[in-house]
Amino acid sequence: MRLSTVRRPDGTTAAGRIEGDTIVLLDHPCVGTLIASGLDWRTAAAGGGGEVLPLDGADLAPLVPAPPKIICMGLNYATHLKEMGRTPPTHPTLFAKYTRALIGPTDDILVPPVTEAVDWEGELAFVIGTTVRFADEAAAREAIAGYTIMNDVTMRDWQFRTLQFLQGKSFEGSTPLGPALVTPDELDNPADLALRTLVNGEVMQKSRTSDLLFPPVEIVRYVSQFITLEPGDVLTTGTPGGVGHGRNPKVYLADGDVVTVDVEGLGVVRNTVRFA
Amino acid sequence: MRLSTVRRPDGTTAAGRIEGDTIVLLDHPCVGTLIASGLDWRTAAAGGGGEVLPLDGADLAPLVPAPPKIICMGLNYATHLKEMGRTPPTHPTLFAKYTRALIGPTDDILVPPVTEAVDWEGELAFVIGTTVRFADEAAAREAIAGYTIMNDVTMRDWQFRTLQFLQGKSFEGSTPLGPALVTPDELDNPADLALRTLVNGEVMQKSRTSDLLFPPVEIVRYVSQFITLEPGDVLTTGTPGGVGHGRNPKVYLADGDVVTVDVEGLGVVRNTVRFA
Repeated sequence: MRLSTVRRPDGTTAAGRIEGDTIVLLDHPCVGTLIASGLDWRTAAAGGGGEVLPLDGADLAPLVPAPPKIICMGLNYATHLKEMGRTPPTHPTLFAKYTRALIGPTDDILVPPVTEAVDWEGELAFVIGTTVRFADEAAAREAIAGYTIMNDVTMRDWQFRTLQFLQGKSFEGSTPLGPALVTPDELDNPADLALRTLVNGEVMQKSRTSDLLFPPVEIVRYVSQFITLEPGDVLTTGTPGGVGHGRNPKVYLADGDVVTVDVEGLGVVRNTVRFA
Repeated sequence: MRLSTVRRPDGTTAAGRIEGDTIVLLDHPCVGTLIASGLDWRTAAAGGGGEVLPLDGADLAPLVPAPPKIICMGLNYATHLKEMGRTPPTHPTLFAKYTRALIGPTDDILVPPVTEAVDWEGELAFVIGTTVRFADEAAAREAIAGYTIMNDVTMRDWQFRTLQFLQGKSFEGSTPLGPALVTPDELDNPADLALRTLVNGEVMQKSRTSDLLFPPVEIVRYVSQFITLEPGDVLTTGTPGGVGHGRNPKVYLADGDVVTVDVEGLGVVRNTVRFA
C-alpha cells in the first residue's frame, strides 16, 4: 500500500491511497492521523475511499505534516565513514528537527538570506505505526508502518557554528518529506534499496541501504530505550557520501537549483531551491 | 500574573491563575493553550475563573504539557565557561528535547535501568507568547510571555556516546518544567535573578542570570532567524557551573535523591529521583 497526504483547494489536507495513476482520498486529514487512528489503520486505509484525484499534478503535503517526533541520524553509511577515515561509531548519532522544517515532496526549498551554505542529504526515512518502548527486534520491526524519503537539507554554516547540529538542520521550510508511505510488504527487500541524490540532473550521491551501519529496526530498538516511539513519529537513517560540503572544492545549492532524491520503490522528492 | 497547569482528579488538566495560596481554574486545558488562544490571553487569564483550589497540595502538570518546540541551550554562563578555560562561544549552542521528556514541578524523575549517570542542570526557562520570525530586539522582548524553571536533567553516559546531546537530554519523564509562568511585570529585573540547585538540601549550583552570555531576548532574536517561534514554545538558557559531571570525583543522582531548583521570583521545582 502507498499512502500520501494531499493538499485540497480549500486549504485542508487529506490522506490518500495511491492506486495506479490516481489517489483515492480517505477520511483522515493526513497520513499521520490515519496511522494514529488505531491498530487497524491498514484495513481502514486499504478499504475506504471517497473522491478520486489524478496523481499527476496532485499537490502533496509533507507526508506526515506534524509528527510527534522527528528523529534524525548522522554518520550511518559504512562506506562513507571508511572513505572519510572515521572509526565506525558504537552508537547511533541522533539529532532532532522541528515540524516547521518540513515541506512537501515537490515544494520549493525556502532559503532566507541568513545562510550561504545550503547542502543536500538524501535519506531513507520511515514512519512509526505502533507505540513501543524497550522494543526487542521483533517489536521494533512490527513498529515500522512504512518507508519514505527525506532530503535532510542542511545549512552547513549554521550546522558548524556550534557542536550541536540542530540549528543547521531545522530551517523553516527546508526539508522535503514524501512522496508516499510505502508499507514494507510493497518492497522486495527494504534492507537493500538503491538511493540517489541528483542536483540539476547530475548524480551527487549514490548508495544502497544495505550499507547502513544501524538499519531502521536497530534504530527503533535503540531509541525506544530512552523514549516511547508512537504512531506518526518520523525517523531517518543518515546520508551516504557525496554531499556538497564534502567535495573539493565545496559545492552548495544556488537559487533555482533542482534537487532530486530517489529511493528504489519509494518514489522521488524533487524540489527547487528558492532564495528569498 | 502567575499561571500553572493543574491536573484534575478526572485525568484532565486545567490552566489556573495563582492568587495568594489558591489557584483559580481557567477555561483552558493548560497554560500552553491559554497563551495560544489569542493576543488578549493576558486579559482572559487575569479576569476569568471558576473553581478555586488550595495551592498547597495541588497536583501540577508540566507548565506547558505539549509545546510546539522545546529549544534548549548549552554553554551560556560566562563565569562557568571562564573557570573551565573555554573560549566564550560566538553563537548560541542549541539542542532539542521532546515533549515526552517533560514532567511536572513535583513529579518523580523516572530513571530506567539503561543509564548510570543522571545529572542535574538548573535553568531559567521562558515561554513564547506571540508568533515571531526575524525578530528585532523589541519584537523579541515582546514575544516572551513569561519565565519559569526547567531542570534539564541529563543522562551523561548517553549524552556523550556521540557528539550530539539529544539522546542524553530526552529521556522520557526526566525533565521538570514549572511550577508557574511568571509574567515579566511580576519581576523586578528578569535579567538578574538568583538561581540555585540543591541535592538533598546541599547547594550544588548557585549563580545569577546576569551572568548569561545570551539572555532570553537575544536567544529569541537568534532562533527566529531560522524558524518561527510561536505561542507555547519553551526555551531554556543553559546551566551554570556546579553540575555533578563537572565535579572531581564526578557525582550522579541516586535513587531517592531530591533535587530542587529555585530561581528568584519564579518558585521551585522539587523532584525525587526514582530508579525503575
